[in-house]
Amino acid sequence: MSDDAVRTLALESRRAARRLATLPAAARDGALDAVASRLLADAAVILEANGEDVADAERRVEAGEMAPPLLARLRLDARKLSSMAAAVRAVRTLPDPSGQVLGRTLLDDGLLLEKVSCPLGVLAVIFESRPDAVTQISALALRSGNAVILKGGSEAARTTAALVASIHAALAEGPVPEAAVASVAGRAEVDALLALHDLVDLVVPRGSNELVAYIQAHTRIPVLGHAEGVCHVYVDAAADPQMAVEIVLDAKLDYPAACNAAETVLLHRAALPDVLFPLVGSLLEKGVEVRGCAEVRAAAGAFPVVAATEDDWRAEYLGPVLALKVVESLDEAIDHVNRYGSRHTEAIVTRDRAAAARFLSEVDAAGVYHNASTRFADGYRYGLGAEVGISTSKIHARGPVGLEGLVTYKWLLHGSGQVVATYTGEGARPFRHEKG
Amino acid sequence: MSDDAVRTLALESRRAARRLATLPAAARDGALDAVASRLLADAAVILEANGEDVADAERRVEAGEMAPPLLARLRLDARKLSSMAAAVRAVRTLPDPSGQVLGRTLLDDGLLLEKVSCPLGVLAVIFESRPDAVTQISALALRSGNAVILKGGSEAARTTAALVASIHAALAEGPVPEAAVASVAGRAEVDALLALHDLVDLVVPRGSNELVAYIQAHTRIPVLGHAEGVCHVYVDAAADPQMAVEIVLDAKLDYPAACNAAETVLLHRAALPDVLFPLVGSLLEKGVEVRGCAEVRAAAGAFPVVAATEDDWRAEYLGPVLALKVVESLDEAIDHVNRYGSRHTEAIVTRDRAAAARFLSEVDAAGVYHNASTRFADGYRYGLGAEVGISTSKIHARGPVGLEGLVTYKWLLHGSGQVVATYTGEGARPFRHEKG
Repeated sequence: MSDDAVRTLALESRRAARRLATLPAAARDGALDAVASRLLADAAVILEANGEDVADAERRVEAGEMAPPLLARLRLDARKLSSMAAAVRAVRTLPDPSGQVLGRTLLDDGLLLEKVSCPLGVLAVIFESRPDAVTQISALALRSGNAVILKGGSEAARTTAALVASIHAALAEGPVPEAAVASVAGRAEVDALLALHDLVDLVVPRGSNELVAYIQAHTRIPVLGHAEGVCHVYVDAAADPQMAVEIVLDAKLDYPAACNAAETVLLHRAALPDVLFPLVGSLLEKGVEVRGCAEVRAAAGAFPVVAATEDDWRAEYLGPVLALKVVESLDEAIDHVNRYGSRHTEAIVTRDRAAAARFLSEVDAAGVYHNASTRFADGYRYGLGAEVGISTSKIHARGPVGLEGLVTYKWLLHGSGQVVATYTGEGARPFRHEKG
Repeated sequence: MSDDAVRTLALESRRAARRLATLPAAARDGALDAVASRLLADAAVILEANGEDVADAERRVEAGEMAPPLLARLRLDARKLSSMAAAVRAVRTLPDPSGQVLGRTLLDDGLLLEKVSCPLGVLAVIFESRPDAVTQISALALRSGNAVILKGGSEAARTTAALVASIHAALAEGPVPEAAVASVAGRAEVDALLALHDLVDLVVPRGSNELVAYIQAHTRIPVLGHAEGVCHVYVDAAADPQMAVEIVLDAKLDYPAACNAAETVLLHRAALPDVLFPLVGSLLEKGVEVRGCAEVRAAAGAFPVVAATEDDWRAEYLGPVLALKVVESLDEAIDHVNRYGSRHTEAIVTRDRAAAARFLSEVDAAGVYHNASTRFADGYRYGLGAEVGISTSKIHARGPVGLEGLVTYKWLLHGSGQVVATYTGEGARPFRHEKG
């Protein structure tokens, strides 16, 4: 698809977004029902398309060109498709994030200012192999009143096309324009999309750190996401040793490939005698490679601790490796986290409330925890209902982001002919500015 | 200053921001008082520095190298300095935007999640000649707990330096680090600042459209501002003719150089007979040049209406010129506004509530008004207390932005040793997710 064709498609998305924004929530919910039903009705066609993608992928796995986990994520069956349809229907139960009155100020008699949430407009969602992302993202976009342009992985091209065709068939029955859900394929098309900062309001990347970093570096459109998760657990001088060990093990091992898994543990020197042996012992027993600073290695005695280098403080291992560093103060811990962390999720373990308060206040991250595992950073665990992504940006939405990340607000002023001249200069009429 | 020196300065700002974030509001307020007092105590030095800037500027105005209004804005006297000091003190009365609990969810017993507003960190504010911007922006930054790096206009270099020196002297007496307010000079330093997306959290440009557009195009740091204000008034078929004329005159003439002044009026064909003559007659009488589409020119009879070109629909005149175009429907009006508008502020004049509701819903702009002048788009008029800027971005803050535009939020999780493993897999403990 040429750059011009991508622009034309985005213009169609914009038009669809405008129409969507005026439809009542019931119409958008009806579309979700229709999509869910149609996915089940189209099961044979979708699974056939998926079978072709899977067959190609199997050849690539055999040839060593593709990692086996990618193949597993790509594969659909009737049961998985049915749970995808159920997930689309479940999005109906989420609260409508748009049309909420966020504030109201009576400026004067008959001059009412309202701050009202509204859809962003057009989302571009760029993801890798998972076909369930197509239906989930489309459902979240429709629920929040946004049009979406999807770009899936090339290995799932036929599956994505079949899913989008099914969604279009469902939308054709109702008032939601088909163009509300569009898709493009190809790397050049991604670059064309990323250039459309006048037409696309938000880019949501879902995939590897490389994908996210590439997108962040190549667009002026706001990006909702995070390139990496270098999360820390700081074990303070006043930590309960057993709690510290439990939290570190959970933060490292509950799901090591997750962005909210811990990569470095900072250990206050005063906690070394009580914590080091049980901590390193447990980690090694669970098969974790421990990389330590000189002081950790010296204190670890017979335990095999690899020498950590500067690179280890920046590493997101995404696997069973943990860096361990001694710090001599809370200040040094905070400095280290603010310097090497990726502003994702950071934890302190301590019985000292003042130390906890300083850590929570001074650490610059989307989530800062006291006596809890970093793994709690998740939209479901936060009770958000759905997770659009986890953002490490400070602007717009931060941390796990639910549907509220897909809306903005506008100021609506309801007047009865007022002009500013009345409120300025000599004899100016005063404003009332009554809130609520 | 080399790029490395600018980076070092920004690192100092970051450190100062961390310290600021932990100070109680009373300490920040004390700093505002100290700054206000010190500005008055340093009046002689500040006015002398300003006198040198003004003398240079006068020579440049005589040589035709500088516009006279710039000179007027640059000039300080004792009275102006005293009102600047009073304005700094007045910032104390604004509500503290940081440290507000925006949400609270009990995830489980002894596991409380809080969403708390907090300062962004480091602001870079780039402005043109006005010396009062130095003190006002510093005060807003301190009140909201942010460090700020100022870059003023070269013509005000000595004045800015004297003001910043006075602020530093005031801060030296209290707990707020002097590095909380820093300044750089020079175009190369601006480019160096704009490259520091890992250290600077928000750029606030205050100046010409060219300045803002340059900054938006040259940084990955979020920018709070707007490059232009192409605002419309749409006079609907069901408009009250007299109200329409009054609103257009106010929107165009109350302050034509303002970003929220109207540039194009769209006139529904059905309103033409009742509105065109009084509207064009009043505009011409007030000295406004009217540029019209062919239909407007044909209907305007003897009134001198210049032929509008495509460029007029995109123009921000910032002066006594107005474009006038006939549309045949509400849809055409909305299409025109969404196509040519700058997403700033748009108004409809109509007695038809359904038409107003559609316009308010479908027009994509920071402010959309019914029966009111576009000139109401202003932080003071909105009752925000202070205006940091007006943003046409959809992300973070939109429209007139008060102190709340200088904060973000973080998620604080207060636990008592919880790990995620407890809440997953077989026998998983359920979350409580109790709001409030």
